[in-house]
Amino acid sequence: MKKALAIDIGGTKIYNTIVDENGQILSEVEKNSTPKTLDEIKSLLKNIISRYEESVDVIAIATAGAVNKENTSVIGSTGNIAEGYSNLDFQALSNKKVFVENDANSAAWAEHVIGASKGKSDSVLLTLGTGVGGGIIVNNRLLKGKNGAAGEMHFKMSMERQRRCTCGAYDCFEAYASGTGLAITAREKTRLPNVTTYDVIEELHAVLKLTEPYKEQKTVTERLQMAIEDCYVDAFLEWQECIVDGCVGLANIFDPCVIVLSGSMAEFVDIEYVEMQVNNDIVTTPTKIRLASAGNYSGMIGVALLAMGVGLNQEVNC
Amino acid sequence: MKKALAIDIGGTKIYNTIVDENGQILSEVEKNSTPKTLDEIKSLLKNIISRYEESVDVIAIATAGAVNKENTSVIGSTGNIAEGYSNLDFQALSNKKVFVENDANSAAWAEHVIGASKGKSDSVLLTLGTGVGGGIIVNNRLLKGKNGAAGEMHFKMSMERQRRCTCGAYDCFEAYASGTGLAITAREKTRLPNVTTYDVIEELHAVLKLTEPYKEQKTVTERLQMAIEDCYVDAFLEWQECIVDGCVGLANIFDPCVIVLSGSMAEFVDIEYVEMQVNNDIVTTPTKIRLASAGNYSGMIGVALLAMGVGLNQEVNC
Repeated sequence: MKKALAIDIGGTKIYNTIVDENGQILSEVEKNSTPKTLDEIKSLLKNIISRYEESVDVIAIATAGAVNKENTSVIGSTGNIAEGYSNLDFQALSNKKVFVENDANSAAWAEHVIGASKGKSDSVLLTLGTGVGGGIIVNNRLLKGKNGAAGEMHFKMSMERQRRCTCGAYDCFEAYASGTGLAITAREKTRLPNVTTYDVIEELHAVLKLTEPYKEQKTVTERLQMAIEDCYVDAFLEWQECIVDGCVGLANIFDPCVIVLSGSMAEFVDIEYVEMQVNNDIVTTPTKIRLASAGNYSGMIGVALLAMGVGLNQEVNC
Repeated sequence: MKKALAIDIGGTKIYNTIVDENGQILSEVEKNSTPKTLDEIKSLLKNIISRYEESVDVIAIATAGAVNKENTSVIGSTGNIAEGYSNLDFQALSNKKVFVENDANSAAWAEHVIGASKGKSDSVLLTLGTGVGGGIIVNNRLLKGKNGAAGEMHFKMSMERQRRCTCGAYDCFEAYASGTGLAITAREKTRLPNVTTYDVIEELHAVLKLTEPYKEQKTVTERLQMAIEDCYVDAFLEWQECIVDGCVGLANIFDPCVIVLSGSMAEFVDIEYVEMQVNNDIVTTPTKIRLASAGNYSGMIGVALLAMGVGLNQEVNC
């Protein structure tokens, strides 16, 4: 069975492990902080690759930022990774073939082959975390667009220029549907003085992650009501409606079999409610809403499967 | 050279003509009102087909409503066409092969093969008329989704539930970017009493369609300012910003080579301005905005080309 050395390069951490053709993780996941300079990133990657390249068939790299259609390099800047990262020659790091894909696209592929959208011809993955990422499968292939940059979830949720997005534009889906977006909405609604977005994130996190037995007994809304101001509940419900609204647009544009929600914020979404609301509002045919199931390392699993060509010829239906 | 009998079935009119493999219209376009009952529609179609089927290779039908992936029938209801239309067995109307596709998808294919997005791998067509239609090309293929219903431009432009769309949901792109949407915005802004949306449409139409020499000398905005209240100019500019905002979302989702604007309202759009604004706002790679160039009968041309398999193997780039 073929194996890949899978590496996930994010703004704060770089992970690596070995993944086989079944999408199984074969070794403990190693974690490093993402170095600040390009030279240090290169050194770290060379070190990782040199230790494993003899025992694998391919090097598979999931990365922040758009990746070109040839799966060899990053296009344009990636915000919080070192300057010059988009010029990095990944293939020069190894004698084995190096395959690169965007991290959200990679996660979408993992869900498509072994996860919540397994064997479905058409699906959309939303990663709800600090930001919002996206990966789209059209007819059993990743949607890449002309240069590989497709799948960015920066569509407008308002024409009023109310809230600036991290991308520089106003009112993108990400600006409201991300964890940061939820915290900003809650801060806007709070009547407490001097509350920062950071305070709100801390409080939301503490409540949402309540340990057992609360988690078993209470819905997310009930937990929020127990612990904090009403406005947090309002903010949470608005956040969830925004996810409904975004899914409606994506379902009308793509007529997908399923929209998969992943990322650290996805577990707080009332999936059944969102599915019902989305299907009430769309003009296309009914879609499923599902929680991601390929696990925390779906980026590494997905890019490994892509690099080994797994899933490209799978039978798909809906 | 192969030829198709092309038929365009809309809510008010049914058109037909003969189209060749080059996308050339070979005969005068015949126009009929769309009959009110399914039986009358069938009779009309049979009459048209019986007169031409012996002299063509295929029957190509562009229709309102979503069309299944097998290109044989309409999915679900089509609003303003007779009840039962979605059960119509198109193939039973002829001994020749009958090929069916959605009208906006067909128009997108015409632009893709002979028009403004000719030879481009990835493009989005927006038809701006009474409503808004859409057709999307991904990697030289029409985006159909799981059941064929993809490409509906019903994504939200607001989370405030401000304006009901014809689809029943609130605040869809169509509710603001259509000609009807522009008229509703203008009526909301006017200070004149008892002005109906219909009055506004009449007035906007009269001004926007000003004959020479005005049309040569004045921009759309200047013409609006000459003739009517300021609020009409404001409404027009908001309408154009909405088109910018919609194109930003589509460009971020699809990373297309070009977004093509067609339909009766497209000629009023300041294409250069929209292209500049869109490219200022997107996180993907630069996209072109272009006016459609395949002509008024692009639906019939596109479905004829699809039915004859023209364009499926064309060389594409960006």
